[in-house]
Amino acid sequence: MTDFRQQALDYHAKPVPGKISIELTKPAETSKDLALAYSPGVAEPVRAIAENPDDVYRYTAKGNMVAVISNGTAILGLGNLGPLASKPVMEGKALLFKRFAGLDSIDIEVKHRTTQDFINTVANIADTFGGINLEDIKAPECFEIEQALIERCDIPVFHDDQHGTAIVTAAGLLNALEIRNKSLEDAKIVCMGAGAAAIACMELLIKCGAQRENIYMLDSKGVIHTRRDDLNQYKQLFANNTDKRTLQEVIEGADIFVGVSGPDLFGAEDLRLMAENPVVFACSNPDPEIRPELALATRSDVIMATGRSDYPNQVNNVLCFPFMFRGALDVRASAINDEMKLAAVEAIRQLAKEPVSAEVVKAAGAEKLEFGPEYIIPKPIDPRLCARVAKAVAEAAVASGVARIDLPANYMQS
Amino acid sequence: MTDFRQQALDYHAKPVPGKISIELTKPAETSKDLALAYSPGVAEPVRAIAENPDDVYRYTAKGNMVAVISNGTAILGLGNLGPLASKPVMEGKALLFKRFAGLDSIDIEVKHRTTQDFINTVANIADTFGGINLEDIKAPECFEIEQALIERCDIPVFHDDQHGTAIVTAAGLLNALEIRNKSLEDAKIVCMGAGAAAIACMELLIKCGAQRENIYMLDSKGVIHTRRDDLNQYKQLFANNTDKRTLQEVIEGADIFVGVSGPDLFGAEDLRLMAENPVVFACSNPDPEIRPELALATRSDVIMATGRSDYPNQVNNVLCFPFMFRGALDVRASAINDEMKLAAVEAIRQLAKEPVSAEVVKAAGAEKLEFGPEYIIPKPIDPRLCARVAKAVAEAAVASGVARIDLPANYMQS
Repeated sequence: MTDFRQQALDYHAKPVPGKISIELTKPAETSKDLALAYSPGVAEPVRAIAENPDDVYRYTAKGNMVAVISNGTAILGLGNLGPLASKPVMEGKALLFKRFAGLDSIDIEVKHRTTQDFINTVANIADTFGGINLEDIKAPECFEIEQALIERCDIPVFHDDQHGTAIVTAAGLLNALEIRNKSLEDAKIVCMGAGAAAIACMELLIKCGAQRENIYMLDSKGVIHTRRDDLNQYKQLFANNTDKRTLQEVIEGADIFVGVSGPDLFGAEDLRLMAENPVVFACSNPDPEIRPELALATRSDVIMATGRSDYPNQVNNVLCFPFMFRGALDVRASAINDEMKLAAVEAIRQLAKEPVSAEVVKAAGAEKLEFGPEYIIPKPIDPRLCARVAKAVAEAAVASGVARIDLPANYMQS
Repeated sequence: MTDFRQQALDYHAKPVPGKISIELTKPAETSKDLALAYSPGVAEPVRAIAENPDDVYRYTAKGNMVAVISNGTAILGLGNLGPLASKPVMEGKALLFKRFAGLDSIDIEVKHRTTQDFINTVANIADTFGGINLEDIKAPECFEIEQALIERCDIPVFHDDQHGTAIVTAAGLLNALEIRNKSLEDAKIVCMGAGAAAIACMELLIKCGAQRENIYMLDSKGVIHTRRDDLNQYKQLFANNTDKRTLQEVIEGADIFVGVSGPDLFGAEDLRLMAENPVVFACSNPDPEIRPELALATRSDVIMATGRSDYPNQVNNVLCFPFMFRGALDVRASAINDEMKLAAVEAIRQLAKEPVSAEVVKAAGAEKLEFGPEYIIPKPIDPRLCARVAKAVAEAAVASGVARIDLPANYMQS
């Protein structure tokens, strides 16, 4: 076992197992404390909530609590290992929520017989939380699950593998195109991969201006086209009316390549076929569809992003999901809608165009971070992210009518 | 609104809503930290758990995490106010788990259509936790729910309103009888109330030696007897083959009265009919079936317990439930069985017979705490409770074959 792998196991095992604990936010030492916290004092907030359900946000931890919920059917790049094995990832996500946005977050692992059983279980426990982050649920079930839960729950439900990825990808792609003076409306886009992230990325790009007919999506059987009869309803939306069948055929002249598939599936010869000033997002993790070294050695006009922290332009969901929920919960949004997602895209884009502090440059291990081909997306450690993205999301929630309270005064101005 | 009621609301609302938060037990500041906590490091514990499910106790917080789960159908003395309104109580219970036993505990409020729907929901999320404490679920559904969950889950499931109450009641009653030189085997017992707590108390007393035919249980319609045709299956077990129909008829000559019903339902005239040296547990809270002042003014030979902290002999579940789970989780018990419950009864009994520190006497606001009619049960603030009860429970789990690991060396010796 490598040193890093052993370190990762030790990190999880010592000094206590796991990464999160429950702590008390109120005094609980004296008999008086306990009489307020439990019987008989607790009857007061119970009565208040029974009379006015909104008081649950006043007297309980609900309003700052995000559940990270998975069935373990698509764990990282590891596949379907079941709910129990997914627990370290879900606790890890809870850790990120706390670390980046100050949100209390608890993991819930769900075993189930049917998709409907999963949906029902999550809907039944939703009252407990302020928001639900779905995680590592395989496609195509994840689409049905998210849609059904959005309908059944009055709190934000957000499948991060879809929308977190889509938001950060869209922000990076739009900035890359801006640098190259290209427009998304005219861009020819090839998407390798047709799972949850791929479909959400392409749907969001369309909302940002991309033309559906300019998108060529590939699954393991090749190009998704209108004559195929093996497509689920989600892939069907991307069935292109084309005679082209292979990556080599569709990549010719493409402006954008988005890889959410697997390692080394995109070769130098493919890259050479792309249009001038191509943009390549090779997001398979940890091993991208094409290594940045190879891409840049093949052609110098490429703008390259990956999922890795050790190369420029990391597409990392943590730029987005903690702050989506921070903003949504702070105005008690009933859902996370397209307006809020697009607001997050714009906030992330904008931050990448602003000067970066010397501390962040140093912590990122970079020589400089200036808006350009090697810096199209902010760094996860940029401390301005929370305020910028959460505020944009909260404002969009208010403007689009899904917020149940107004922004607090001086929200996110510190 | 009284001062105390306002204080209780303020306690819950300020400075942050609610009583619990999620905190991180591992460093999460640097990029290296995050690489261990989440991608790519987290893949290591995921793989380990996929290969060996028991490793979930090694690498995640599961083993110290208790879910407090309710549907809000029987909230304290307030009735069926639904899941949302039950949240302050469930958070309060989580607070008690942490305060008294160092267990991480999170509340889960469940809405559901049918009893089966509730059972299924809880069973589906059980992998997340080390144990499940059911709370404030009305009878008779609570019996079916607990039984089904015990069968479906491989972790301890414990309905505290039943068994926590029963264990503390049994400990107190046995000590009271010991003081009076009476035996439970010969005792005539009247139980007013036929809900979850009443039935669990009587079942546990039978396991402690009480004779079922010596028990007279009353519900709102009077004595539960064999000619009634309106009894659910749980009450039927206590249908007494008697011609007596009223409290006045059955209380005559009774050694023990257990009230888990409502305020002031047991009068001085009833008490006068009891046998010599009667034991009265008037556990309706906050207003007991008979006030201690009245009982003791009526006859001086009574040993009296209530649910209140401002009288001697408080029957308080917190003497039991945190430590049941502490002991059960520390040996990874697959269930909480009768052996473990009886071990808790004995441990609580024993502690009441031992000298109490001056600090506890003072904190309890008592002049003295010496085993006798006014001190048959330990005080919740007695710091020895956790070690004594948890150790007894853990040992019983090992001895009865439900433990999956042995007691740690020097367990609970500090």
